[in-house]
Amino acid sequence: MTMMMDKGLSLRQVEDFIEVSGAHTDIVKLGWATSFVTPNLDEKLKLYRDAGIPVYFGGTLFEAFIIRGQYDDFCRTLDRYKMEHCEVSDGSITIPHDEKCEYITKLKKQVTVISEVGSKDVTKIFAPYKWIQLMEAELQAGSWKVIAEARESGNVGIYRDSGEVRQGLVDEILTKIPQDTIIWEAPQKAQQVWFIKLLGANVNLGNIATNDVIPLETLRLGIRSDTFDHFLNQ
Amino acid sequence: MTMMMDKGLSLRQVEDFIEVSGAHTDIVKLGWATSFVTPNLDEKLKLYRDAGIPVYFGGTLFEAFIIRGQYDDFCRTLDRYKMEHCEVSDGSITIPHDEKCEYITKLKKQVTVISEVGSKDVTKIFAPYKWIQLMEAELQAGSWKVIAEARESGNVGIYRDSGEVRQGLVDEILTKIPQDTIIWEAPQKAQQVWFIKLLGANVNLGNIATNDVIPLETLRLGIRSDTFDHFLNQ
Amino acid sequence: MTMMMDKGLSLRQVEDFIEVSGAHTDIVKLGWATSFVTPNLDEKLKLYRDAGIPVYFGGTLFEAFIIRGQYDDFCRTLDRYKMEHCEVSDGSITIPHDEKCEYITKLKKQVTVISEVGSKDVTKIFAPYKWIQLMEAELQAGSWKVIAEARESGNVGIYRDSGEVRQGLVDEILTKIPQDTIIWEAPQKAQQVWFIKLLGANVNLGNIATNDVIPLETLRLGIRSDTFDHFLNQ
Repeated sequence: MTMMMDKGLSLRQVEDFIEVSGAHTDIVKLGWATSFVTPNLDEKLKLYRDAGIPVYFGGTLFEAFIIRGQYDDFCRTLDRYKMEHCEVSDGSITIPHDEKCEYITKLKKQVTVISEVGSKDVTKIFAPYKWIQLMEAELQAGSWKVIAEARESGNVGIYRDSGEVRQGLVDEILTKIPQDTIIWEAPQKAQQVWFIKLLGANVNLGNIATNDVIPLETLRLGIRSDTFDHFLNQ
Repeated sequence: MTMMMDKGLSLRQVEDFIEVSGAHTDIVKLGWATSFVTPNLDEKLKLYRDAGIPVYFGGTLFEAFIIRGQYDDFCRTLDRYKMEHCEVSDGSITIPHDEKCEYITKLKKQVTVISEVGSKDVTKIFAPYKWIQLMEAELQAGSWKVIAEARESGNVGIYRDSGEVRQGLVDEILTKIPQDTIIWEAPQKAQQVWFIKLLGANVNLGNIATNDVIPLETLRLGIRSDTFDHFLNQ
Repeated sequence: MTMMMDKGLSLRQVEDFIEVSGAHTDIVKLGWATSFVTPNLDEKLKLYRDAGIPVYFGGTLFEAFIIRGQYDDFCRTLDRYKMEHCEVSDGSITIPHDEKCEYITKLKKQVTVISEVGSKDVTKIFAPYKWIQLMEAELQAGSWKVIAEARESGNVGIYRDSGEVRQGLVDEILTKIPQDTIIWEAPQKAQQVWFIKLLGANVNLGNIATNDVIPLETLRLGIRSDTFDHFLNQ
């Protein structure tokens, strides 16, 4: 599964993306709250839908509504744009985890919920058992998938400042959480390579830049240097 | 104020940019002397003008004329393309500052002048009092705004090699030069965040990459993680 | 000579590229095996050919066929797409150098061969005499040009991890191999600047990103800060 992050594409750029990468893309996230600023939202959603690619708003949009006490407005926004997926996150706000799980359970009645674990704040580092606890609770509350946070840049959450994977953390998460329920945000090539080598060609990867879906597909297929040997040796 | 840097967009790419980001862009710079190399200049200028977005040639074009003793040709070039703004800089050449100010005063009769302070040479570091002196003189000579140099990469002038802001320098400049007369070149996200937190949502930022105008707008609005808390707490 | 790397452009993006940068581009490489994944190959090749720009498949495609024992299929693929150039490399596979040279000699009967020297593996560092030996043998076997490897990222082969040029290596190569037979992969601006200063405006540079051809052209012309002085002082 490949999740692409659209940070404000024009309609023609969406068409170009679909032409080249549509067949290799499973879902598109409109990054954080960019959907709120770009003027072409209805038409853009139509383009993705006509291509059979589901779309959802980045979690920061959810948080921007919640922090203002506008949960009902958020639901109406999802309705207004006929969204079939939504992201529930707490990367920029602090809410009790029970409350986050309640949102997941409520929203699940309206849409397919993807929830995100991990703070966007580099100083907030959770222990592995905490990641597992949060992921388990959110899946139980009704999340279809949980996203392991890394931001657009790939230097927080499951990664160190340098972008290097927190390997011990990932290993420990995988002892408890089924692999296919996790989407690993992996915007950097080295991160994509690392997860493909660990979990195979079909690993769920997110926050892939628009122009990186084709390069990622070659990594998955073992026809780029970085994974060339890996798949031959199997 | 947001100034976008066009490093050689095609006409369709300009149209795409205007569709998505036109409403959030106040002025466009055709980066350094790229306008001299791209074959679509007349049509490109027309697209920006039809969208109501002013355009100017990067200062390196001015310098390329001046160093060859072709000031008059430069003025004719501005005329030929019906430019309403121009940049006067000395980032790549060394000229006496009096002479630079004379160019500002002369060009001001023809166009709105934006002048740039700071060298593109990483080894040339000015003391704060010098920045202030240069900026004051250029504003007095007739510059509409002064640009604080950072290059496309954001690692010289008001920034350290690492891209980190020279905070003391910025603070000292602001004690003497009115904020609204300065455009801070801030190509990197962390730099944009820093200036928005210091000077507010409407701070003048320049050298914004084509695809970063929408992300910048979300920073200004406090709907991206980096500035989310900042605006809530006000 | 400027070689641009296409990592999966759409047809419209190719048209946009040709509009702006076509006149400054001598040859296009479809990066590694991306040509195998993008769905628009026939039409894309036609666009480049109609613009008079030769195209070839990145060497990893050659290697993917060779490692599977499908040399004949590779030749048929070149035929099927009417390719006039091809790249022979061993960046991801290990084959005896004699065998690589035999492929060059055989393929030379069908197409113009560009061969690549240097591993994509950062841990495989050749001594300068070895680079020279390999380049000489490949040119003698029939390569039109030899490419000095750097990958898309510019941090292996002729560069250190940091992207810095291995100057001694380049100097030594140039004592034995004619400059015009070498294409230096130079994806980073500092690398392009370094080679332009060493070898002049017309140096052969490869792996130039789609949007960097215009910026590179300004470097070659001495109308960007980095090479501004260099050409004035000559």
